[in-house]
Amino acid sequence: MIFLFTDFGSADLYVGQVKAVLQSRAPKEVVIDLLHEAPAFDARASAHLLAALAARLPEGSVTLAVVDPGVGGPRLPVAVFADGRWIVGPDNGLVSVAAARAKKCNAYSIGWRPQALSASFHGRDLFAPVAAMLARGDRKSPKLKKAALAVNLGAADLGEVIYVDHYGNAMTGLRASAVRRDGRLVMGGRRLGHARVYSETLPGEIFWYENSLGLVEVAANAASAAATLGLRVGTVVEFEQG
Amino acid sequence: MIFLFTDFGSADLYVGQVKAVLQSRAPKEVVIDLLHEAPAFDARASAHLLAALAARLPEGSVTLAVVDPGVGGPRLPVAVFADGRWIVGPDNGLVSVAAARAKKCNAYSIGWRPQALSASFHGRDLFAPVAAMLARGDRKSPKLKKAALAVNLGAADLGEVIYVDHYGNAMTGLRASAVRRDGRLVMGGRRLGHARVYSETLPGEIFWYENSLGLVEVAANAASAAATLGLRVGTVVEFEQG
Amino acid sequence: MIFLFTDFGSADLYVGQVKAVLQSRAPKEVVIDLLHEAPAFDARASAHLLAALAARLPEGSVTLAVVDPGVGGPRLPVAVFADGRWIVGPDNGLVSVAAARAKKCNAYSIGWRPQALSASFHGRDLFAPVAAMLARGDRKSPKLKKAALAVNLGAADLGEVIYVDHYGNAMTGLRASAVRRDGRLVMGGRRLGHARVYSETLPGEIFWYENSLGLVEVAANAASAAATLGLRVGTVVEFEQG
Repeated sequence: MIFLFTDFGSADLYVGQVKAVLQSRAPKEVVIDLLHEAPAFDARASAHLLAALAARLPEGSVTLAVVDPGVGGPRLPVAVFADGRWIVGPDNGLVSVAAARAKKCNAYSIGWRPQALSASFHGRDLFAPVAAMLARGDRKSPKLKKAALAVNLGAADLGEVIYVDHYGNAMTGLRASAVRRDGRLVMGGRRLGHARVYSETLPGEIFWYENSLGLVEVAANAASAAATLGLRVGTVVEFEQG
Repeated sequence: MIFLFTDFGSADLYVGQVKAVLQSRAPKEVVIDLLHEAPAFDARASAHLLAALAARLPEGSVTLAVVDPGVGGPRLPVAVFADGRWIVGPDNGLVSVAAARAKKCNAYSIGWRPQALSASFHGRDLFAPVAAMLARGDRKSPKLKKAALAVNLGAADLGEVIYVDHYGNAMTGLRASAVRRDGRLVMGGRRLGHARVYSETLPGEIFWYENSLGLVEVAANAASAAATLGLRVGTVVEFEQG
Repeated sequence: MIFLFTDFGSADLYVGQVKAVLQSRAPKEVVIDLLHEAPAFDARASAHLLAALAARLPEGSVTLAVVDPGVGGPRLPVAVFADGRWIVGPDNGLVSVAAARAKKCNAYSIGWRPQALSASFHGRDLFAPVAAMLARGDRKSPKLKKAALAVNLGAADLGEVIYVDHYGNAMTGLRASAVRRDGRLVMGGRRLGHARVYSETLPGEIFWYENSLGLVEVAANAASAAATLGLRVGTVVEFEQG
């Protein structure tokens, strides 16, 4: 199974080109779009989102992860094998939070290069072929070499909004397991209490809850929390305990 | 074949997680996105849209249907077997119009529960595993029991806009087979005549026609009928015969 | 492998219906969404975009191409076999640029018609079944007959914006191989210089570069070139050499 996590845009013409490469090279693999609206140009917020998603993916899967504002520049391609799952992407921090949180993880440089490499679309030309190789169980062709990540953001949580979904819910980089339920989430001077789920709140009420990825998320009952509070990726979030 | 009909958003990170579960449990099944922009929080409009779509799906298919504002609350999961097609979803009316219009239909409660059930994402944790079981022909594991639907919206048409597409066409819950071609559609005090298809109208002209799902739809030639008339899901639509 | 290139909208309920037909008739084929946001109602800009994409698709693949404002009218369905790749769509110019640029190409009328043909959705009812037949290697059922295209836009480049992506990059119908790197792109009275890739420019800087499809594209470093310059599909683009 190959998962795609990118900022290519779900409606644009980039994902299909990546899939054409993947399915040409690994025709029997199922390819699944995890997200193509990762925070654009923002490897840090994307890294935290990817870490939360990757921890739930099937062992043996390969994730192609591309949020890559430095494409065509000096940053190098990298592959990590974290708790039995491959992640392939640019070495700009994107894969590093998932790597740092894994119980067991090895990082590798990728020696393979395509005959024709566009300046701006390594997702199609370099990362997709390598992901297809790994999905087929071919660890030799990518020419992997153990190597430390050049950019390592570490395992710690991020006290910021990392994603706003189409309901207007704002996901943060804080793992709910690390905060107390009676704590209050503070954002933009406003304090928000905890609820277990939408249906336990009043219409329009804004609250925080543990979302289905285990992250602290700000939501509103049948309304947009993000629009109401003016939240966007990068908005700072703090916790006031007890 | 497994079809997905949800309000999860086609661009968000929810559908991929559902597919990871489906394809892990039923790796040979083709999974097809029918719609992920079903009217959010609106099980009634969504139920009419689902009924129109479901009637055309291949026999033997399984549809995972989730528009579920009450997730985590007391509403129960349900499966219906309507004219040879399974639909799995919350018992909040969503599957009930398709069920009521089927020539032959049985409804079942679902006894199976996952070991870990998130409060907010039953699409991934409960409905997807059950859909995968049924797609594989396993009718035992979901622990189905014949049971009447708790919420039944009936088979009757709905005189409202139930979907606005990206062209700005407004689909209604009225089946075209039930209205006369010489009738006039009335919405917001305005009367619209019938045309067979776009290319028989003038540029910008607004008309109603029988769409490809058999529903009455308001459209404009190379323009947005919804923007021009201010139509949205819930806008009331009436027919003035002859 | 079957590719989809349409203006059906990636978030709408049309693509899933097309896929239900394709996978019912060709269950073993991989179906890939190339683009569903082709310039709506605009067969000319779409034709240039399709030509750039189609040249890179695997030989033996079938592309279903539908941008079809005249659906239900007199325009006929057509299939072209261009450099080993099938493209099926309406004979309104859409497939003609790809056909004209191919080294070897045959065009065919399609004699097959479905038992039930909706007035507005030939993508589902006519083009999808024919694409599935061809993908399975069945050249007989579509009832193909060699025939010249009724609308032929030719092989020449188009000096206009043909697509704006979600980053705000504006793709043109000019092939980069035909222009000089020291040339300046002129749009709306403004002159833009060349850069190889984003990461070689300053934040906010607007430039043109050869994109990953070989087209001249206007982009900005971590900003929207289209929003800054007011570009949209149809904006005229010229080149000032040396």
